[in-house]
Amino acid sequence: MTDNRGALMAAEIAEQPQMLERVLSSQQGVLAPVVQRLRDYNPHTVLLVARGTSDHAALYAKYLIETRLGLPAGLVSTSAYTVYDESPHLQGVVWIAVSQSGGSPDLAQSTRAARQSGALTISLTNTESSAVQDAAEIALRLDAGEERSVAATKTYTASLLWLWLLVETWAGGDTSAADPVPRWAAESLDLPTVPEVASRYRFVDKLVTTSRGFAYPTARESALKLMETCYLSAHAFSGADLMHGPLAMIDEDRPVIAIVPEGRGGAALEPVLTSLRERGADVCVVGPSAVQGNSPISITLPSGMPEQLAPIAQIIPLQQLARLMALSRGYDPDHPRGLRKVTETH
Amino acid sequence: MTDNRGALMAAEIAEQPQMLERVLSSQQGVLAPVVQRLRDYNPHTVLLVARGTSDHAALYAKYLIETRLGLPAGLVSTSAYTVYDESPHLQGVVWIAVSQSGGSPDLAQSTRAARQSGALTISLTNTESSAVQDAAEIALRLDAGEERSVAATKTYTASLLWLWLLVETWAGGDTSAADPVPRWAAESLDLPTVPEVASRYRFVDKLVTTSRGFAYPTARESALKLMETCYLSAHAFSGADLMHGPLAMIDEDRPVIAIVPEGRGGAALEPVLTSLRERGADVCVVGPSAVQGNSPISITLPSGMPEQLAPIAQIIPLQQLARLMALSRGYDPDHPRGLRKVTETH
Repeated sequence: MTDNRGALMAAEIAEQPQMLERVLSSQQGVLAPVVQRLRDYNPHTVLLVARGTSDHAALYAKYLIETRLGLPAGLVSTSAYTVYDESPHLQGVVWIAVSQSGGSPDLAQSTRAARQSGALTISLTNTESSAVQDAAEIALRLDAGEERSVAATKTYTASLLWLWLLVETWAGGDTSAADPVPRWAAESLDLPTVPEVASRYRFVDKLVTTSRGFAYPTARESALKLMETCYLSAHAFSGADLMHGPLAMIDEDRPVIAIVPEGRGGAALEPVLTSLRERGADVCVVGPSAVQGNSPISITLPSGMPEQLAPIAQIIPLQQLARLMALSRGYDPDHPRGLRKVTETH
Repeated sequence: MTDNRGALMAAEIAEQPQMLERVLSSQQGVLAPVVQRLRDYNPHTVLLVARGTSDHAALYAKYLIETRLGLPAGLVSTSAYTVYDESPHLQGVVWIAVSQSGGSPDLAQSTRAARQSGALTISLTNTESSAVQDAAEIALRLDAGEERSVAATKTYTASLLWLWLLVETWAGGDTSAADPVPRWAAESLDLPTVPEVASRYRFVDKLVTTSRGFAYPTARESALKLMETCYLSAHAFSGADLMHGPLAMIDEDRPVIAIVPEGRGGAALEPVLTSLRERGADVCVVGPSAVQGNSPISITLPSGMPEQLAPIAQIIPLQQLARLMALSRGYDPDHPRGLRKVTETH
């Protein structure tokens, strides 16, 4: 353990505004031919395959595809393609593999199988070359710069932005709506109450994160960051799923982090927040000041972010929270115990 | 609190062998016309929609559909259809809504929207009439008998068997493979080490469940039962996802329940079990004696169950475990705090 604990993660979190700016400019020529190919292919369904942090980016893309393109979308169980080795019928399916390292054998193998069965395959990785890239017909590169901290941060927000740009371009929308994303990210980097929340949670060993709709992947990703770096029982639920059973375990001793965006997802979360408060839960609302309601503690995000783009900035204070909580417990968030940067699963 | 704590749940768990026998005989005439309609419709994709326990049955069906039919399958984010209110393109899609009560407005509303956009809609509920049934073109009834305990048990195993029968009939397979299911369920009702595991976990407040493939829904459902009835932090991970980050939080103080079937899913779990043991985790293996390896404690399931059918019996000792752990903590598993039998989410 050195004095540099968390230095990589801190630097990579801080890089995000410039990195997002770079993505916005580098996508210009890249996406047009991809979208042309997608339109020619005219798919009926989109499948996404990913693990860990990238799986949360894939979940975000699933919401975008369902709502913006109206296409059925699903997250793939890779075991159906690798462990059970069946021949799928994937003509008319777009298959998107999201992987920071591009190195996990199950993603490469299932992507190869999908391509052989007629799917239009796309990879989104942060590498020059990788097994997943080799497996896919179209390789998109995140171009987030090398990520050295085991806890992924900038590759997550890069994936979200690339996926938003891909879907929005495909939908024929105006991608200039994303122009303020780097500024929103910059404004979310050093929010004043984050150290206070980290301090409040210094002795917490289990907590719940929740949200709904586009911000639900933020709840999932922040729980994973807390598990990876602080070894907490951090459990993410969509607001609706929370009401179907897990609500029973909420009491005053288990803090809840609720990510509440402006817009419909935030509005749909209101009855969940009411139930949580009735049970005496200590709820930290992460959202713009207008949605915070009566919370003992909160993290105030920039106002005016459209709900579909907000997740890119939303996660940043929660990355910082995981980093600060790990440091306050004496852990090194750059090197969580038992993890390596590339996880190989089959 | 009366002396009857958990009596409903105990009775409903015990009813499962006879209930499964009843499902096997009542499906005979029911499924043939449904499968004819499915074949005529000739779908390219299957979507499933459910919440809570039924969502785990839907996840099981997703694996079956992917591997047995080779069709792309996805679990629906209802919010895409209810909160964001977009018009999906669902021609060629089979939409299956699974709901014990059939009463949740989001399931009914999204099923109506799916039907209007051209999907072939099927409901699977345990009711004579319900909003979800009314919304769907084809209504299948679980016929599990009234379920009164808030913690669902028999409607879960009934859903699994119905979904297996539906997919297997659709695939043109031989459904007589399910004939021994009631016997396997009976043999799983009172396994001798379950009270011992409950006692070992008396003071546990967080644990992890894991599996892979067809048995992964068992891990999810057992975690939900423990959350609902014992208010534990019970966190389910697919073996592959566990390796992508959450492994860091495993140590000797957090027991792991691993559901290890005979077959490929069990084999794919081996490296995960090795990693868990290297970290000093206290692993309880739930599976036939041949797969148990070197565990400090285990629950021995019947041998010879095919991997695709095993989940129906596999969950039963874990339902018993949740019931016994709730009782040993002085809770009433029939009436978890803060929950009602029908959860209405929008």
